[in-house]
Amino acid sequence: MPSDRSGFDVGLLSPVTVGFDDLVADAAVADALVQVEIALTRAWVESGAAPAETADAIAAALGEGTDAGISRVVDLDPLAAAAVAGGNPVIPLVPLLRAAVPPAHRAWVHRGATSQDILDSAMMLVARNTARQIVEAMTDAERHLTAFARTHRDTVAAARTLGQHAVPTTLGLRAATWLAGIRRARMRLEHVAAGLPAQLGGAAGTLAAFVETATRELGDAAGHQAVERLPALFAAGLRLAVPDAPWHTTRWPVTELGDALVQAIDAAGVVGTDVATGSRTEIGELSESAAGGSSAMPQKQNPAASVLIRSAAVRAPHLGATLHTAAALAGDERPDGAWHAEWQTLRELLRLALGASGTLARLVAGLQVDTDAVARNLGATRGLIVAERLSAALGGLVGADRLAGIIAQAGAGGDLRALLQAEPELAGLDLDDLLDPARYTGLAGHLVDRLAPAPEES
Amino acid sequence: MPSDRSGFDVGLLSPVTVGFDDLVADAAVADALVQVEIALTRAWVESGAAPAETADAIAAALGEGTDAGISRVVDLDPLAAAAVAGGNPVIPLVPLLRAAVPPAHRAWVHRGATSQDILDSAMMLVARNTARQIVEAMTDAERHLTAFARTHRDTVAAARTLGQHAVPTTLGLRAATWLAGIRRARMRLEHVAAGLPAQLGGAAGTLAAFVETATRELGDAAGHQAVERLPALFAAGLRLAVPDAPWHTTRWPVTELGDALVQAIDAAGVVGTDVATGSRTEIGELSESAAGGSSAMPQKQNPAASVLIRSAAVRAPHLGATLHTAAALAGDERPDGAWHAEWQTLRELLRLALGASGTLARLVAGLQVDTDAVARNLGATRGLIVAERLSAALGGLVGADRLAGIIAQAGAGGDLRALLQAEPELAGLDLDDLLDPARYTGLAGHLVDRLAPAPEES
Amino acid sequence: MPSDRSGFDVGLLSPVTVGFDDLVADAAVADALVQVEIALTRAWVESGAAPAETADAIAAALGEGTDAGISRVVDLDPLAAAAVAGGNPVIPLVPLLRAAVPPAHRAWVHRGATSQDILDSAMMLVARNTARQIVEAMTDAERHLTAFARTHRDTVAAARTLGQHAVPTTLGLRAATWLAGIRRARMRLEHVAAGLPAQLGGAAGTLAAFVETATRELGDAAGHQAVERLPALFAAGLRLAVPDAPWHTTRWPVTELGDALVQAIDAAGVVGTDVATGSRTEIGELSESAAGGSSAMPQKQNPAASVLIRSAAVRAPHLGATLHTAAALAGDERPDGAWHAEWQTLRELLRLALGASGTLARLVAGLQVDTDAVARNLGATRGLIVAERLSAALGGLVGADRLAGIIAQAGAGGDLRALLQAEPELAGLDLDDLLDPARYTGLAGHLVDRLAPAPEES
Amino acid sequence: MPSDRSGFDVGLLSPVTVGFDDLVADAAVADALVQVEIALTRAWVESGAAPAETADAIAAALGEGTDAGISRVVDLDPLAAAAVAGGNPVIPLVPLLRAAVPPAHRAWVHRGATSQDILDSAMMLVARNTARQIVEAMTDAERHLTAFARTHRDTVAAARTLGQHAVPTTLGLRAATWLAGIRRARMRLEHVAAGLPAQLGGAAGTLAAFVETATRELGDAAGHQAVERLPALFAAGLRLAVPDAPWHTTRWPVTELGDALVQAIDAAGVVGTDVATGSRTEIGELSESAAGGSSAMPQKQNPAASVLIRSAAVRAPHLGATLHTAAALAGDERPDGAWHAEWQTLRELLRLALGASGTLARLVAGLQVDTDAVARNLGATRGLIVAERLSAALGGLVGADRLAGIIAQAGAGGDLRALLQAEPELAGLDLDDLLDPARYTGLAGHLVDRLAPAPEES
Repeated sequence: MPSDRSGFDVGLLSPVTVGFDDLVADAAVADALVQVEIALTRAWVESGAAPAETADAIAAALGEGTDAGISRVVDLDPLAAAAVAGGNPVIPLVPLLRAAVPPAHRAWVHRGATSQDILDSAMMLVARNTARQIVEAMTDAERHLTAFARTHRDTVAAARTLGQHAVPTTLGLRAATWLAGIRRARMRLEHVAAGLPAQLGGAAGTLAAFVETATRELGDAAGHQAVERLPALFAAGLRLAVPDAPWHTTRWPVTELGDALVQAIDAAGVVGTDVATGSRTEIGELSESAAGGSSAMPQKQNPAASVLIRSAAVRAPHLGATLHTAAALAGDERPDGAWHAEWQTLRELLRLALGASGTLARLVAGLQVDTDAVARNLGATRGLIVAERLSAALGGLVGADRLAGIIAQAGAGGDLRALLQAEPELAGLDLDDLLDPARYTGLAGHLVDRLAPAPEES
Repeated sequence: MPSDRSGFDVGLLSPVTVGFDDLVADAAVADALVQVEIALTRAWVESGAAPAETADAIAAALGEGTDAGISRVVDLDPLAAAAVAGGNPVIPLVPLLRAAVPPAHRAWVHRGATSQDILDSAMMLVARNTARQIVEAMTDAERHLTAFARTHRDTVAAARTLGQHAVPTTLGLRAATWLAGIRRARMRLEHVAAGLPAQLGGAAGTLAAFVETATRELGDAAGHQAVERLPALFAAGLRLAVPDAPWHTTRWPVTELGDALVQAIDAAGVVGTDVATGSRTEIGELSESAAGGSSAMPQKQNPAASVLIRSAAVRAPHLGATLHTAAALAGDERPDGAWHAEWQTLRELLRLALGASGTLARLVAGLQVDTDAVARNLGATRGLIVAERLSAALGGLVGADRLAGIIAQAGAGGDLRALLQAEPELAGLDLDDLLDPARYTGLAGHLVDRLAPAPEES
Repeated sequence: MPSDRSGFDVGLLSPVTVGFDDLVADAAVADALVQVEIALTRAWVESGAAPAETADAIAAALGEGTDAGISRVVDLDPLAAAAVAGGNPVIPLVPLLRAAVPPAHRAWVHRGATSQDILDSAMMLVARNTARQIVEAMTDAERHLTAFARTHRDTVAAARTLGQHAVPTTLGLRAATWLAGIRRARMRLEHVAAGLPAQLGGAAGTLAAFVETATRELGDAAGHQAVERLPALFAAGLRLAVPDAPWHTTRWPVTELGDALVQAIDAAGVVGTDVATGSRTEIGELSESAAGGSSAMPQKQNPAASVLIRSAAVRAPHLGATLHTAAALAGDERPDGAWHAEWQTLRELLRLALGASGTLARLVAGLQVDTDAVARNLGATRGLIVAERLSAALGGLVGADRLAGIIAQAGAGGDLRALLQAEPELAGLDLDDLLDPARYTGLAGHLVDRLAPAPEES
Repeated sequence: MPSDRSGFDVGLLSPVTVGFDDLVADAAVADALVQVEIALTRAWVESGAAPAETADAIAAALGEGTDAGISRVVDLDPLAAAAVAGGNPVIPLVPLLRAAVPPAHRAWVHRGATSQDILDSAMMLVARNTARQIVEAMTDAERHLTAFARTHRDTVAAARTLGQHAVPTTLGLRAATWLAGIRRARMRLEHVAAGLPAQLGGAAGTLAAFVETATRELGDAAGHQAVERLPALFAAGLRLAVPDAPWHTTRWPVTELGDALVQAIDAAGVVGTDVATGSRTEIGELSESAAGGSSAMPQKQNPAASVLIRSAAVRAPHLGATLHTAAALAGDERPDGAWHAEWQTLRELLRLALGASGTLARLVAGLQVDTDAVARNLGATRGLIVAERLSAALGGLVGADRLAGIIAQAGAGGDLRALLQAEPELAGLDLDDLLDPARYTGLAGHLVDRLAPAPEES
């Protein structure tokens, strides 16, 4: 194997995330770490404590705005290796950055900060950027699902509960329900992403080293005031939310994000599950436009996108729970392991959400319906799909027991219409209407209109 | 063992939840199921489809407002046993309720509804009631923590990161940080609890059976309109939120609730963890007012409340994840097992949150500080608690290497003050100030004032 | 609600466990706690340190062997309430037991032990008894599955991968595969259950208090020797395994048990999943003999047992993981919360395994096959179920591309046999054989014979 | 960022696994896939169905035994990308391999197999190789812990329960207890690793395509017999266990492996937890030889290895549970997503176990004891560490109430020895012995000898 590849994963064992890596890969994380360090120097300048030219000089030295970016100063492999000794990658990163900066400005690199300030803020930055792409993919999926729901607003189909045909529904309502789950999750993710806070607390959340520096530069009162404003300046530079206070041990920014990501994957998982079911050979109502093949079985059309989405849905809840375990154990002023457990977990959850949402958008964009199969399945119980309606409508006329007998006979193979016609009490009833599944879809159309309004109406 | 007790749990193996059961016990669930059925009849009346007297007659027959309540008509043991055959308790409950209602009104019991409508709505009702008590306990904890943080606003203490003394902080800031986590979680829970929706979709989410009934009673157009309003009327009667649409398979109401409950327990877990640490024999800064004893070791004062809170914190994330697994697998128009997995899980999570928040309120109400121990610990590193400050303040004067040497000597047992005094470059510096931990608490007081303002200021 | 019921659960929200509670209910746990205390006094007697009559006197006083048993001395509700202060139920139990014992023997109650000795041993006792019943239910299921697999050894059916028809298999092989998973899990559980150790370490695992007592009674050397034998005597009295050493913080007895229970539920979950799929209206190959009804949809036959098994399968992995989280955090000589998190979790997992295995035994005992549906489904792809065989057998004759074209035409609705007959290169081939799914089941029969041998052969 | 790095992780966010990647990286997985395909051709040859020269020709063509290995024929990035369409990497791999093989032998590549055969077998191969290294690291840790336990066999220290000093123990017993947990986990992992089975079932577990080929080559009876032996030949070539039957949907090989890996990490987690506690500034009994520094706080010596181990311990249970969720949902003849969820999860769990065990070996190899701190802490309760003994020994002489009073006085600061000496009933007692913690360590030495025998005795 090529020596420069040992240790790397390209996604061979996680097809759902292949191609959705850039925003969360180590290179992106390292870039974010440097951006955060630069933003801190900018905040120092804006606070009035650091000389005006400091930030630009540091930013230029660290390659801001160039294609090479961080790669000028940081080689990822040795950085990762050096992260082991101290337990996090910021400890070895800081001297590398300082070395890259002209001596005159060096003192302002990482000034006052602790590793957790930089790493937490960088993770929030990565999360914010990733969430934006997830939201885009979900929005894309919503658009396609809206169109799908509207197209099939009145395509009557069998509704299934516990796997059994229950009553009629419409494909449109099923899709609109998927849409409702995805939209809720997307809105929650947008809300959470908009509130992801920067982290700035110094060694233990008191900002003491910041105060030390600022009061030295600006005097006692102005120094304190400068530091009181520093987190907001820092957050603004990163376009992150301003924290109420350091959150070294109050990890809701991580768990609320994790919960929202899991919710997004849950919502995709429902679609994957339903499409996989609808694609079953015996059901055949749905198919993916780019169904996956099989080398051995040339006839197979696997619902590969659905399967991959489901693989993410199986994994995500456990990753979200890991973040909560870490949050619940966040003791002292910095947790001794729980914090460290978050990083890879959150990254993997972001990657899964990217992959699941991107795969979902592709899936629903090309989702195919076999309306013949839909109609055939609707008739599979030979009329009993409307048995609930018959009970309500006819129970009073022929008696509940007698009606149950008719339904049982029909269930055993009898001709439902003939059995009903044979009942004198039912003479004159409009059996065509009563037995028509399309006449027993309740508010399905109304709900589609509400959940999936035509774009011009929305 | 008493025969009428076999099968029952009173909490012997879950001390954290003992005494916090009433709102979520089977009796409360059964009560909620009946309340929901009554609310449905009220909604029918208000929609205009059912005769005005129906709802009151049914409510009276089902014991609404009486002490006996549901126990008039339902015995829990046989109900639970009868739930096995169909897989949920509503199926056997409905005929029991119908039998208890005068024949004239019987047809309106459970009319149009499916089991999931009743069970989901009842769980939301139970959750809403439980959340209210959790919020109360958390609010109580916040009040005590505010007082504690204000009392100890300026009690300087060692901040610990990865278990090691880092820099000074204050007990007040530590408590205010706990408070911030609890307040965030409480507000999130309040928000979620206020949005818990009623469920009303009929057999498969189309509300077809409701439409069937309403159009029969009111005609086609008026019937449809009545059913369009029915979920809102139903929700209003239960003081639950109006659902956008049936959520038989879009389970965010369950997972968002679960996430908020886990977040609440996480926040309590941090306090439990820190109090358990602060109560360690060697640390001894904190103690619970009602510390638990030991039959064998008479001198022991166990931080029993903290321990119990931590037991909840270990369990909760896994329960929350179970709800997500269920949500992600919620296929068809009703899931074949995933739905059923939610009930006991959500109940246990509600119970844990009740127990953890109640225990937390008790814990923080009586939390004791040994200020001597706090001061003694602060001095444990013989001055090095301010080493970060010395580096910043003195590095430029004596050089970083030399300063590191001094700190290493002090770490090995040398007298820090004497070592510093021996440096000619540092002559004239105010070492009393520099070495005083109380002079290096940064914005701790400011943050306490922001996070834990005195009640009159809030 | 009846006041004596508040706080109790009878299983209303967990139908899969209703009726499977007795062995793990609080009453059973309390009984086990008392049995363990009695066993300790017997071990003391057998070690020679305690007077011979002590154990029987204590056992009699505590109601051993009587119907009332522990209920003579312990009321569960106040015991549970009293467990809160110290964090575990043994602390308040001990004085109750002592009070019930004649003063002359009182000193030997709980002598030398710590709460954890009693509670851990009692949980192992409860687990051992419960595992026995789970193993019985699984053995029962295996017996039924063997019969089923043998009956359907040659019932050719469509095998499905990713939900798509792949190649033929037999119902017998599918059932034999279920059986293989259940047998493996049952054997693992038997193995683990046979090794569940008693716990005896005293306050912190040194057995110091035991040594203190024994050396006082027997002298130094004999006393030490007596205590070295004490754990084995104690374990033998409970018919538990002899521990290598106290396991206060090495929690593999709990996690290995938990893992085995989850594995058992996983294996049941596969059956539940396949039966739910096979029961789908469009598939209709399988049905439960006691399928659940629906109050609203009289025609429905829900696979209720499968659904309930699946509900357990969704929950169990998270409970097993909770035990591991607790094990991984088992610090000091007794963990401060992680230990307490185990109890209810392990109990719930035992209860779920009881319910899932019992429900499984009932399910497979009555599993019905619709062989017409099996045959109809097998033909659903109009011959393409053997496409893999055609590729292998005919690719060399007509060329891979041409064959792929034929299969594609057949997939689009063409008559596969006619298409093949039209190929000159295939003239003379035995198409009846080639296209017969029953001729392409590989080693299915052989595997059934190996996995599910007829009872007389086994 | 360098374009050839986008998408790659080098471990920046997972310091615990940095440097432990080679055996589980994508390159290793791809290598294993090719080894499995080669082993299949060898098995074909050994079964007599394939020409003798086939296997070597294929092996040579695929680069077996060369340094370049698989890299001759496979580029990982495009392979991963191509895996998305069909949902697994074997589908695109097979044509690449075939193209690399001379046409005469091409037909024997992947013959009869399905993707799952190759991927499952390759994962078992990767797991076997990885488990070997984990076992080595654990064995190394055991060796160091044995030495440590023997060195500190009689170093008396405070035992802590719920964080409170309980009674004396020895550092040796604490280490021996860690050792017991690690040894149990290592033995379990060895046992599981030795039983990891090859997978060979063909498209749906019937081995039909194998039979088709073999009977064509060898005739009906000999062909069947050849295929009956094929899995054993295949497994032997890979030095994996022979499967009883295909395990496409009976996933105990994956979950038992996962459980064993989690157990190994749990056992390491206990050590990490205890070392982190023992390293706390106020406790100071233990330190890591290579404690991690802090850029900001030069005096800090972080227990970085312990912290990283704990980060693995927080994560592992959730990964293990993911495998169970997947196993429980393994329906049909190949699961539609649950299978795909295993791969990355199992890999990450293997990686975590590699990292945690390697870090553990390093940690315990260099673990430092500050015996002064141990002794100082032992005296922190000014004699009350033996209060349990006093109760047992003196309760009968002075009465339990009076003794409790003495202990309470001592707890409040009184001089325990003086208080006891003041009791006339205790005159003449050997208080030196009674109050000496070293005289109240019970069987600690005996247990160390049993759990950690000197190497020459073992």
